[in-house]
Amino acid sequence: MRIPEFEDILAAQQRIRAYVHRTPVLTSRSINRITGMDLHFKCENFQKVGAFKFRGASNAVLSLPEGKAQGGVATHSSGNHAAALALAASMKGIPAHIVMPRTAPGIKKKAVAGYGGIITFCEPTLAARESTLALVVAATGATEVHPYDNFQVIAGQGTAALELIEESGPFDLVMTPVGGGGLLSGTAIAVKKLLPACRVVAAEPAGADDARRSFYAREIIPSVNPLTIADGLLTSLGKRNFAVMMDKVDDIVTVSEEMIVEAMRMVWERMKIIIEPSSAVPLGALLENKIPAAGLKVGIILSGGNVELSHLPFGAS
Amino acid sequence: MRIPEFEDILAAQQRIRAYVHRTPVLTSRSINRITGMDLHFKCENFQKVGAFKFRGASNAVLSLPEGKAQGGVATHSSGNHAAALALAASMKGIPAHIVMPRTAPGIKKKAVAGYGGIITFCEPTLAARESTLALVVAATGATEVHPYDNFQVIAGQGTAALELIEESGPFDLVMTPVGGGGLLSGTAIAVKKLLPACRVVAAEPAGADDARRSFYAREIIPSVNPLTIADGLLTSLGKRNFAVMMDKVDDIVTVSEEMIVEAMRMVWERMKIIIEPSSAVPLGALLENKIPAAGLKVGIILSGGNVELSHLPFGAS
Repeated sequence: MRIPEFEDILAAQQRIRAYVHRTPVLTSRSINRITGMDLHFKCENFQKVGAFKFRGASNAVLSLPEGKAQGGVATHSSGNHAAALALAASMKGIPAHIVMPRTAPGIKKKAVAGYGGIITFCEPTLAARESTLALVVAATGATEVHPYDNFQVIAGQGTAALELIEESGPFDLVMTPVGGGGLLSGTAIAVKKLLPACRVVAAEPAGADDARRSFYAREIIPSVNPLTIADGLLTSLGKRNFAVMMDKVDDIVTVSEEMIVEAMRMVWERMKIIIEPSSAVPLGALLENKIPAAGLKVGIILSGGNVELSHLPFGAS
Repeated sequence: MRIPEFEDILAAQQRIRAYVHRTPVLTSRSINRITGMDLHFKCENFQKVGAFKFRGASNAVLSLPEGKAQGGVATHSSGNHAAALALAASMKGIPAHIVMPRTAPGIKKKAVAGYGGIITFCEPTLAARESTLALVVAATGATEVHPYDNFQVIAGQGTAALELIEESGPFDLVMTPVGGGGLLSGTAIAVKKLLPACRVVAAEPAGADDARRSFYAREIIPSVNPLTIADGLLTSLGKRNFAVMMDKVDDIVTVSEEMIVEAMRMVWERMKIIIEPSSAVPLGALLENKIPAAGLKVGIILSGGNVELSHLPFGAS
């Protein structure tokens, strides 16, 4: 099992530079006043396809050896990774085969198709997704790109932290949300090399706390029946991601659903930017005092901004 | 009746530079693809208090002669101007007296109070607002700062267009929304001096079309029972604003409510930034083909980003 090192993230940065947006790092005086911290938000909600996932997908596509590239890439996903892989492949001029459950929301099917992805529908079970993906790979010669448990994907996701530190570092603490662990592992590799004294802490919903439990059990505990509004954080940890987490991450904390929504509302209202619930999880942890960070300079990676505007969690106040 | 000239906008820029945010100018590849135009959005939704109003209010406060400044400023408003004036006054260390109808939404009272405004409540009629404001001015010696029909306010609002042109000019067309005409008049003075060949066109809701009717009647026609989601655009034109409009603005166009919401949704979804309905009116006009702008380079001033998240216009899709 190959795990990327800092040099692989630097190589990814060179490789994808012309393809990805260098997203801004924003600050908010009023959120700093409320938290008593010095917060710097890396805005991957402004990234192509609206999420950091485009970094890893681009790096995976651009890393394919010439002989393999023409077969294209493949994945089973109905989320941001599928859209990201489809766009990255189309920019490179190769096919992206996306296996999606036939029950996926129409808006997600449309997004993937809009980026040029070739969709194969399957039954909505993990077994069906995996067997269908195996068939697609066998039939097309495509290279599977896992959404997070993949060497080049992890290296690509780490480039967001590189930019964050270049622009606004150093930091006392860097935070990301954690689902499968792609963003977290790439971030931890980058941060611990550039800022050895900086803490790296991930946050996850209390209703999907498999990463925290895995961290303390020192083995991967799968995510079973996760229940959270942060729909990007439902997945179980990958093996590579878990290994990096045990080696380089300082802690995993959990956040209540109420505080995820409050943090999301705070960013929308105070910063006037749209973030998806998963992005709000680290700020929610800080608002819930899960990490002693008063007075610290903190970098937070906002993972994405894809929300369904017709179904927002802001009730009548 | 003194009307600002270009030099007054330059002076305002110097005066308020250290107080206001220099907001970014953003572009969106996907909105450009949809419209077939080259659109540049000046993001006053990121301005302090969430709206361009802070420019004019700051300029008015900072322009007060020393003898008058200590008496403070006063206005009757329940919107962004009240919050902007309160913050500008508090930064200068002088009082801001805000007359508000006692029926104003709690969230607006809280915003003004949060910025340090001294609120006097009155009955919810224009007569009561004006008489109460006169009493407050008489009792305190405060200087009234009208939300748009004011020399220094117009000069201040014009600084947004200066920055837009400095950053991304030249343009074929510059657009703003129009309500009382403060932003439009300041913008027109700036644009017509720096880019004489550039057209300046304002957009307003079809349900609040007093500016278009006034423009073609060549006299101010008051806004009567306006009905629109764009609640920043309900007011009638000011005298100074009308005079500038007749002299320098090329056209006023109207937009349907449906297209205002569609434009707002497009900016939220594609650009991941929060704008209020008033900000979406110019883009709505372009989407509705009210102005022949195919292939043109267009600057649009996004007026603000203050929305009540519990009451959004995005129905189930």
